[in-house]
Amino acid sequence: MPTVVLTDHAWPDVSIEREILEGAGHELVAPYATASMTQIDALVAEAQPAGILTCWEPVSARAIASSPGLRIVARMGVGLDNIDVAEATRRGIWVTNVPDYCVEEVSDHAVALMLAWLRGIAPLDRQVRGGTWDPSSARLARVSTRTAGIVGYGRIGHRTAAKLAGLGMRVLALRPRTSTYADGPVRLVDLDTLLEESDVLILHLPLTPQTHHFVDAALLAHMRPGSLLVNASRGPLVDTPALLQALDDGPLAAAALDVVEGEPLPPRELVERQNVIITPHVGFSSDASVAELRRRASEEVVRVLAAQPPAHPCNAPAAVRI
Amino acid sequence: MPTVVLTDHAWPDVSIEREILEGAGHELVAPYATASMTQIDALVAEAQPAGILTCWEPVSARAIASSPGLRIVARMGVGLDNIDVAEATRRGIWVTNVPDYCVEEVSDHAVALMLAWLRGIAPLDRQVRGGTWDPSSARLARVSTRTAGIVGYGRIGHRTAAKLAGLGMRVLALRPRTSTYADGPVRLVDLDTLLEESDVLILHLPLTPQTHHFVDAALLAHMRPGSLLVNASRGPLVDTPALLQALDDGPLAAAALDVVEGEPLPPRELVERQNVIITPHVGFSSDASVAELRRRASEEVVRVLAAQPPAHPCNAPAAVRI
Repeated sequence: MPTVVLTDHAWPDVSIEREILEGAGHELVAPYATASMTQIDALVAEAQPAGILTCWEPVSARAIASSPGLRIVARMGVGLDNIDVAEATRRGIWVTNVPDYCVEEVSDHAVALMLAWLRGIAPLDRQVRGGTWDPSSARLARVSTRTAGIVGYGRIGHRTAAKLAGLGMRVLALRPRTSTYADGPVRLVDLDTLLEESDVLILHLPLTPQTHHFVDAALLAHMRPGSLLVNASRGPLVDTPALLQALDDGPLAAAALDVVEGEPLPPRELVERQNVIITPHVGFSSDASVAELRRRASEEVVRVLAAQPPAHPCNAPAAVRI
Repeated sequence: MPTVVLTDHAWPDVSIEREILEGAGHELVAPYATASMTQIDALVAEAQPAGILTCWEPVSARAIASSPGLRIVARMGVGLDNIDVAEATRRGIWVTNVPDYCVEEVSDHAVALMLAWLRGIAPLDRQVRGGTWDPSSARLARVSTRTAGIVGYGRIGHRTAAKLAGLGMRVLALRPRTSTYADGPVRLVDLDTLLEESDVLILHLPLTPQTHHFVDAALLAHMRPGSLLVNASRGPLVDTPALLQALDDGPLAAAALDVVEGEPLPPRELVERQNVIITPHVGFSSDASVAELRRRASEEVVRVLAAQPPAHPCNAPAAVRI
């Protein structure tokens, strides 16, 4: 019976995955909710899977190379930064993702993070819980007087832009080199203009070697005084020491982050600041999206193990194993 | 020189008020940021003002009666629940408000409070600060799958409705008895339908004897299981013991409140709950709105003391003193 390894999962059980995979005659091996690279390397070498399902933990070149019958690494999500895609491609192994299951959720989350700062919800809720009731301390925004700048104007960025325009904001987006999306309510501009004019900078970029530390000291120095950084994408897009400095000395007023470098152990210097709002990488999550994600990723594995092409291939393997 | 008393203020200084009033030849008396009814009664009796500016503290019948030269009580805000309007009317004294200075802010705030629960921003930020990083604990919503119901479909309710529709939500509003507003993206329904179909109930009602404890045990019992109550209007619209019970035993999942009974000393049983989000009555507040509010309320006093009609009268005084 072909084996499928699930490296990790961000939900309480694996019932959906088990039902779909066992229904197709596969065995599911899923001992971990979270795991280290070493644990996953050992798990794959031991289980010799034909398929790997992975949420966030690393699927290394070593893991991929250790199971000669491996035919698919299926990401349960959008980004591919935790998978050694080049190694999979070289070995004729499909890498897939679920590109569009959480477009509504991540864009909702970016808007919610922004409003939680602009309207003071998170810091004032903390203050009231601490026993202080001081409306005069609030420094809040009329949202429609503010400009938002989106970096990463794909499926998710496009939905975020529409939602921000619905709040009456002026919306800019970094002009993408390749984009199939129409402008909608958004003005596409270069990076200098984006940073000069945005009161809120929202990151919806994939994490790649080119976007690693995209937000560094040099970029932060060009942001507007009193502006807000929203990261709803991947922690390593932002250089944490540079961010801390910009929160201390300006120009940033605050950061609202669903992702941080070092998660699930975010830096305490960041977590403890009153002008930082952090959620634990849940932008993708909802009752609707998580069920859809688990079903679609599991079905992708079943499809490839039945020698059919995947619905959402992310690579072009050298010579596909059948 | 005519005296104007400012009973209280929710901002750090009274420079805008002083500039406008002294510029018109009046003396400003503003000893308190917050004050009790007893303090205000004594202040008015002592200062014998021709005008009273008030934020939230009570302007009683006793205070109004104690200054024979009083010609205007100007509310720095929208609601009139802290002013004895009947007494002012009987004595020929104008009561005014600033009805439209914070329409954007309050509707922004209602949307922000709703999203802070539906996307878990406030509770998860507390959890991360507490040292836990557990995305699998999140129970979040795809906002566009939810229905919002608005009670109080005036200027503010109308803007909230438009913003919620921009997020992709289905929006209902309680059919007003008198309304000059078109339907827009909203379906107007009766209260039973509103409670049956709304995942989020948003209050934008004025506080009057008729709306006091509008949300009571009977109403809460008809809300949807797992629903959210948002109050961006006045605390006494909601019966607090009934709310606590509905948060304990259902049907409410949570409450997100900018106002509570007993503020500025909100009930600890409410504040300490993890399924409650509270901000300290700041829905009206922004850099833009507060400056506009202070200027327009002060100008209203100057206008009436110059024997001109007020721009925004809220009563029809028996015989206006000139």
